[in-house]
Amino acid sequence: MYNQESYALGSKRSSIREIFEYAKLRAEQIGAENVFDFSIGNPSVPVPDEVEKTLIRLVEKTPSIRLHGYTSAQGDKTVRDKIAQNYSARFCVALSGDDLYMTCGAAASLTICLRALYEKGDEVIVIAPYFAEYRVFVEGTGAKLVVAPSDEKTLLPDFQALANAITQNTKAVIVNTPNNPSGVVYDEQVLQKLSALLKEKSEQYGKPIFLIADEPYRELVYDKTTPILSPMRYYENTLVCYSYSKALSLPGERIGYIAVSPQAVNAKALYASVCGAGRMLGFVCAPSLFQYLVAECDGLTADLQVYKRNRDLLYNALRSYGFTCVYPQGAFYLFVKSPEKDAKAFCKKAQEKELLFVAGDDFGYEGWVRIAYCVQTERIERALPFFKALAQEYQL
Amino acid sequence: MYNQESYALGSKRSSIREIFEYAKLRAEQIGAENVFDFSIGNPSVPVPDEVEKTLIRLVEKTPSIRLHGYTSAQGDKTVRDKIAQNYSARFCVALSGDDLYMTCGAAASLTICLRALYEKGDEVIVIAPYFAEYRVFVEGTGAKLVVAPSDEKTLLPDFQALANAITQNTKAVIVNTPNNPSGVVYDEQVLQKLSALLKEKSEQYGKPIFLIADEPYRELVYDKTTPILSPMRYYENTLVCYSYSKALSLPGERIGYIAVSPQAVNAKALYASVCGAGRMLGFVCAPSLFQYLVAECDGLTADLQVYKRNRDLLYNALRSYGFTCVYPQGAFYLFVKSPEKDAKAFCKKAQEKELLFVAGDDFGYEGWVRIAYCVQTERIERALPFFKALAQEYQL
Repeated sequence: MYNQESYALGSKRSSIREIFEYAKLRAEQIGAENVFDFSIGNPSVPVPDEVEKTLIRLVEKTPSIRLHGYTSAQGDKTVRDKIAQNYSARFCVALSGDDLYMTCGAAASLTICLRALYEKGDEVIVIAPYFAEYRVFVEGTGAKLVVAPSDEKTLLPDFQALANAITQNTKAVIVNTPNNPSGVVYDEQVLQKLSALLKEKSEQYGKPIFLIADEPYRELVYDKTTPILSPMRYYENTLVCYSYSKALSLPGERIGYIAVSPQAVNAKALYASVCGAGRMLGFVCAPSLFQYLVAECDGLTADLQVYKRNRDLLYNALRSYGFTCVYPQGAFYLFVKSPEKDAKAFCKKAQEKELLFVAGDDFGYEGWVRIAYCVQTERIERALPFFKALAQEYQL
Repeated sequence: MYNQESYALGSKRSSIREIFEYAKLRAEQIGAENVFDFSIGNPSVPVPDEVEKTLIRLVEKTPSIRLHGYTSAQGDKTVRDKIAQNYSARFCVALSGDDLYMTCGAAASLTICLRALYEKGDEVIVIAPYFAEYRVFVEGTGAKLVVAPSDEKTLLPDFQALANAITQNTKAVIVNTPNNPSGVVYDEQVLQKLSALLKEKSEQYGKPIFLIADEPYRELVYDKTTPILSPMRYYENTLVCYSYSKALSLPGERIGYIAVSPQAVNAKALYASVCGAGRMLGFVCAPSLFQYLVAECDGLTADLQVYKRNRDLLYNALRSYGFTCVYPQGAFYLFVKSPEKDAKAFCKKAQEKELLFVAGDDFGYEGWVRIAYCVQTERIERALPFFKALAQEYQL
């Protein structure tokens, strides 16, 4: 009687959500200070002061009919021009406001891009470990999700495996850097190799293969030696999906954009298709107040140093206890190898010590766990003895 | 190479948008004061003071991590409880927060409902004249749009025609009251008849036919003798799609809800399906600041008396000039019979007098035009002599 896909998605809780709910329950039982919830990727630092000031100034100074009125469907023109100008200067590309489409956040950016590109029989490739909702978005569009493994050592793309995954039906590859759940960041060499492969395969099959770059964690890169790059500089058929959720600590406000590379094949038609897809899915325009806000605050960030401190603390401690971890250059996740084959069993054992995190199984990657360190530093400090005890239990 | 449906939707401008763009161009040529643009349904009254005060108070007093953080996907629980409580008290139904799903406005409410219900082969009925985007949303979901005519005199549903349009494949009927483009409002008798027909047909086909009530104009009803009713009171299998766009003059902020009748067949599963559909389409949560805002401002309205004054002025004048108009009890549109068969030709002739409005053809209804009177009253006053001259030209 109802749509079975929708029903299944709405009635089945994700394991992340399960653990999050368990954490709340457990906090009631033994006190919140005794539960170490590392399950959810929710920003834990406040918005920059400038965001609050700008919000108040916009409300006080802008006529409400303009501030809260419809913008054009693709976003207010002055907002798009400003963001495109910043993007171009920062990433050395020639992006204009007419290549930008403002969205209700990264999830909307992805569903709109996928719908804009979709033709019957399409396959879309993701690289494991990958953000679990990619499957929901790709299959919801009607396309087939194809999972390519990454290099076991680095968790960067395994280019041979990726090449093998590409077929005549491949419409796009989704990449996510900095990565959820692994924290790895693609450097210039990786982007160049990726570009070379996609160019070669596009030529081989006589049709463009698109790169969809999902970049909500773009600004969360912690080492000065790791530059932040735009994939658009390296590969022409690129759509960048961005959200201000993490950079400005605004995840609930749903504000981001799609940047369509002006170098893409028939870029104007692709942009039109993005506009049409947004319309079809029911996105009339991105929230107007936050469009004007991000135009003014684009380039600012919340105090991301907290995450860097957390990363250093957790990564160094867990390594010293004997855990195998991927060094996370960005995002706010630490990916840790499970000391036993079954990562879910490892999670259960950790849970006995009130350490809550999620198995990599949810990200298409068995044998590993994801620890979200976007929490108060003090929580990590208090959790460390329990991690140490856990390591000892496994005789690491 | 791209999705053809999306491309077509994104590259073809709607006639409403065409006329709106023409109005801007024309204003540059002859001065904005000489162009009478009645093409767009954009609220023209400011938000209530209370909205601005509440926005500033929320930003100043609420910790930003909560205010701008993710809410649960269906919306913050306290927000849903508050709105459901108000709704129940106002409309004499027993709605709980767990029956409400907060959305990014009415368009999102519709695409989510349609996706939640969709099964292969579905037909969805709309009653002409109807809001043109219904076709986009219904066909975008994969269902077939079936258009039932309305009663020619009243523009209310023609129940015989509606009965004829219902088949084994009918999943839902979309109604829109107060109506865009006609301004008519369904009274209790109409809702009772509609309910009786849908019950009878559901029984006949052995499956529920859902009523999707699109109600962004709910509060825009101008005569005290016209009560505002919830269709949920009359028909069990109802989904109400609401938006605060018009009531609070917040169309750009994209905030509304879906209310799933707790009396619907297997209501909990239907609600789960709504949650899953939202997830699949990329709606993570409705914008959080505006969730908290509408919880506090639910029940308030902008100064809607301006629209009533405009309606009275325009309706009475056009009637006195000899035009045939539907008396609009609500929304902010006047539906006027074209004095010549081709409404587009009539629009062209009006355009020569700088009067800009749109043909009913865009709403599946030929021979009529829609005049949006959500403008400054003074603009209507200055336009009246031109309407009079137009009537004289047609020898009305």
